Amino acid sequence: MSLVVATLGSHSALQILKGARDEGLPNVVVAEAGRDRLYRRYGFVDEVIAVPRYADFPALADDLRARGAVMVPHGSFVAYLGEDENARMRVPYYGNRGVLRWEGNRHLQRDWLVRAGIPVPAEYARPDEVDAWPVMLKTFGAAGGAGYFLAPNRGALERRVAALDGAPYTLQQYVVGVTLYIHYFQSVVHDRLEILSMDRRYETNADGLGRLPHAIQAGLDPHPSYVVVGNSPLVLRESMLEEAYQMGERVVRASRALVDARGQWGPFCLETIITPDLRFHVIEISCRIVAGTNLFVDGSPYAALWFDEPMSTGRRIARELREATAAGRLADVVDLGPLATPGGHP
Amino acid sequence: MSLVVATLGSHSALQILKGARDEGLPNVVVAEAGRDRLYRRYGFVDEVIAVPRYADFPALADDLRARGAVMVPHGSFVAYLGEDENARMRVPYYGNRGVLRWEGNRHLQRDWLVRAGIPVPAEYARPDEVDAWPVMLKTFGAAGGAGYFLAPNRGALERRVAALDGAPYTLQQYVVGVTLYIHYFQSVVHDRLEILSMDRRYETNADGLGRLPHAIQAGLDPHPSYVVVGNSPLVLRESMLEEAYQMGERVVRASRALVDARGQWGPFCLETIITPDLRFHVIEISCRIVAGTNLFVDGSPYAALWFDEPMSTGRRIARELREATAAGRLADVVDLGPLATPGGHP
Amino acid sequence: MSLVVATLGSHSALQILKGARDEGLPNVVVAEAGRDRLYRRYGFVDEVIAVPRYADFPALADDLRARGAVMVPHGSFVAYLGEDENARMRVPYYGNRGVLRWEGNRHLQRDWLVRAGIPVPAEYARPDEVDAWPVMLKTFGAAGGAGYFLAPNRGALERRVAALDGAPYTLQQYVVGVTLYIHYFQSVVHDRLEILSMDRRYETNADGLGRLPHAIQAGLDPHPSYVVVGNSPLVLRESMLEEAYQMGERVVRASRALVDARGQWGPFCLETIITPDLRFHVIEISCRIVAGTNLFVDGSPYAALWFDEPMSTGRRIARELREATAAGRLADVVDLGPLATPGGHP
Repeated sequence: MSLVVATLGSHSALQILKGARDEGLPNVVVAEAGRDRLYRRYGFVDEVIAVPRYADFPALADDLRARGAVMVPHGSFVAYLGEDENARMRVPYYGNRGVLRWEGNRHLQRDWLVRAGIPVPAEYARPDEVDAWPVMLKTFGAAGGAGYFLAPNRGALERRVAALDGAPYTLQQYVVGVTLYIHYFQSVVHDRLEILSMDRRYETNADGLGRLPHAIQAGLDPHPSYVVVGNSPLVLRESMLEEAYQMGERVVRASRALVDARGQWGPFCLETIITPDLRFHVIEISCRIVAGTNLFVDGSPYAALWFDEPMSTGRRIARELREATAAGRLADVVDLGPLATPGGHP
Repeated sequence: MSLVVATLGSHSALQILKGARDEGLPNVVVAEAGRDRLYRRYGFVDEVIAVPRYADFPALADDLRARGAVMVPHGSFVAYLGEDENARMRVPYYGNRGVLRWEGNRHLQRDWLVRAGIPVPAEYARPDEVDAWPVMLKTFGAAGGAGYFLAPNRGALERRVAALDGAPYTLQQYVVGVTLYIHYFQSVVHDRLEILSMDRRYETNADGLGRLPHAIQAGLDPHPSYVVVGNSPLVLRESMLEEAYQMGERVVRASRALVDARGQWGPFCLETIITPDLRFHVIEISCRIVAGTNLFVDGSPYAALWFDEPMSTGRRIARELREATAAGRLADVVDLGPLATPGGHP
Repeated sequence: MSLVVATLGSHSALQILKGARDEGLPNVVVAEAGRDRLYRRYGFVDEVIAVPRYADFPALADDLRARGAVMVPHGSFVAYLGEDENARMRVPYYGNRGVLRWEGNRHLQRDWLVRAGIPVPAEYARPDEVDAWPVMLKTFGAAGGAGYFLAPNRGALERRVAALDGAPYTLQQYVVGVTLYIHYFQSVVHDRLEILSMDRRYETNADGLGRLPHAIQAGLDPHPSYVVVGNSPLVLRESMLEEAYQMGERVVRASRALVDARGQWGPFCLETIITPDLRFHVIEISCRIVAGTNLFVDGSPYAALWFDEPMSTGRRIARELREATAAGRLADVVDLGPLATPGGHP
């Protein structure tokens, strides 16, 4: 029975499904009714399963497992299924489910980065600790930039925190620099780290504000928001690329000490701000494919240094699955989760 | 006699001509003396015809028609030839000339979008109706962003309107968000809508202002202008892509009710602003190839979802012409205009 | 003995080495210890030579020459080796070493551009001549934007100049517009100028400031800096492309009058600001491959107009070396420098 690449219909699903097709693997996408229309438009999608709501997904698990499906997670998995459901899902999963808990909790995430020797901005436990303004408030699980708030001063911050009503959050120093997101791929089959591409997020309305002259802004007093609606491509100064690689390697190494012996593998992303002293400041880690890779369905300048054909992150995942299968090592690159009991291997 | 792809030398002509070559169709470009040099530089251009001024173009019509030319229009056609001349031109034309009138009149354009259920910003008939500032004034036929004026208040607006001396204009709510331009292609041969790429415009000086700190802007008090001098690539959040498709489909459907039974086909573009609530606001429609597609001469991440080879919008047009010809359906994708009388088919 | 493409490990070395591999030429990179790790990651690099410091490079000259190496310079050559060492280097060099002096001295550079009829911003010899604010101060040899200072007024400028302690500098009018960098390639073998790609620089913190609302900037009073940490892709309005070509041609022609009979060949870059009247203002020329070309390792929309396969500037250099060798014209595209004495040809 051939392996089938499966994912949820959102975020970077088109890239994942196209990558499967390019590597000769069948694919299937599960999408909420209405959303499924997008996936029916394209010829490279083998099967579209519509469900009333994403929360109905677990009911499909036995069927998907029976077909030989491997779920490829992306940034909408936790948003749609919740961290617990992800961990419980009885379908083989590309990547390490143990990482979810570290990614989802901003304090654990920070511990991981610090342990890996990654430079991070100052953080504050409570509003009264903040000693530099503005400061960035981020709620836990904020996805796509929707839960970010740039607090200009203590009064505004305290009002916002009060409105959170006890929900967990973090307060992060606002670093004045430029953002750059680095798309890594840790290959188990080749035992190496690859940088495949880079992007910056396109955020509304933050990326529109600069086009309004000062005098007009003064009248509007707009509050910046950081909702991600797209991405644009970047390359990094070559003299900083080795440090980018080494940060990624340290993150992988630290995950093997903190999470479990297998640690982080597959795609992940360090979200950096670069200051004029040419230093990285990492504001977040995403432990799966990020949407910025959607820019590179037909190749990227960094992937071209590793591969002689267009290699998106989605296709890279499919290739790893294909090569692992051919080498009899599929169990090394998927997390069987609740299946991983004696006799429970697929 | 083989079909010949013809266009005017400007805007996206290189892409159109290269696309013809890639699809095995001969091409010819008509350029103003001086401008013709650009097209002589490249080996994929079969023939360059220099004319003293673009207004001399109609004199070539009989010759072009005799050679089997199909004119592929772009954003400079109306600017160079005028709407009436375009409609009268006795050369087969790729696309529906009936759409020109709807595109060229900002009130008709808005009616079309509203009829298609497309969200549009508020508009005001006169300066005294404006109730929110700033407001964007756009003259009719403003091309390349040159006729835009961001009015910070009523006084500035009234002075500007007075200076227009009766020329038609529209007043549009200024939506604070980020811009994203969606490049569609409605295929008659395949009876489907494709999204081929996306971009944002690079506007001088609006895109430079944000690099000037507030304190320096305050001294300069620069007035923002929106003259388009380039474009940069973007991808859109995947969860908004189905809505982007459906907006395009509604625009095509509405055009069949409003313009004529054939409506809009071929390339068109919705020019959107996206706000933090993840909603599109469409500020304009362009009913032909837009210059932002020039980014994708060697392929785009969206075209790669439809085609297994690099497919620019220019090449997509040539492919449609080639496939229509092979199917004996060329008359379905060109507008014969003044030729379309009994016995007048080419 | 086959020609070997050699370069220093930084800036655009990966692109240069990959280009050599794609054209079937062996390659070698010389990198400072620590930096060499980057180049050992990639399979297309044939040999990595680690040196304690870049200043140790000249000791390798005899060995490299004996192997048939041609050094391909990039933006870090002068920074690492100094202008004099570059000129003295006893290894064949791709490009004209005589140009180094014109590029490195801001006054000579300006003379060259003016002689070529290139529009340049106003310049001032001393702070007291400045009559428009802000003004840009640039030290000589400032690389990667690190030596730029935007002076808001005379007091700030005079303090900064005093701090330079006699080091040479230039004062340039600050043009309010948008930046666009044009990547040219002057082929000796084909006797033609090609535009291969375009970019804009991604500068910290200048490109981050616009994302901070006016009210927050007012509190921070950030000083803009222009340190280049990356690049993003652009295309130019097609109606301005012929002027871009002609500016490049005039620069090449002027170099043959000013530098020597061979003048400028190979890659170079005009760094422009475009104002709302659609005019270019050239703020700098770089007479070798620029880092913005790193965006196009797997091709660009402009290179696709010249070549039917992905053609980075790095690969274009390798192709020119390969074609020149095949035609027995290698001596026409390399500068033998101190070797170019009777009997000294390699």
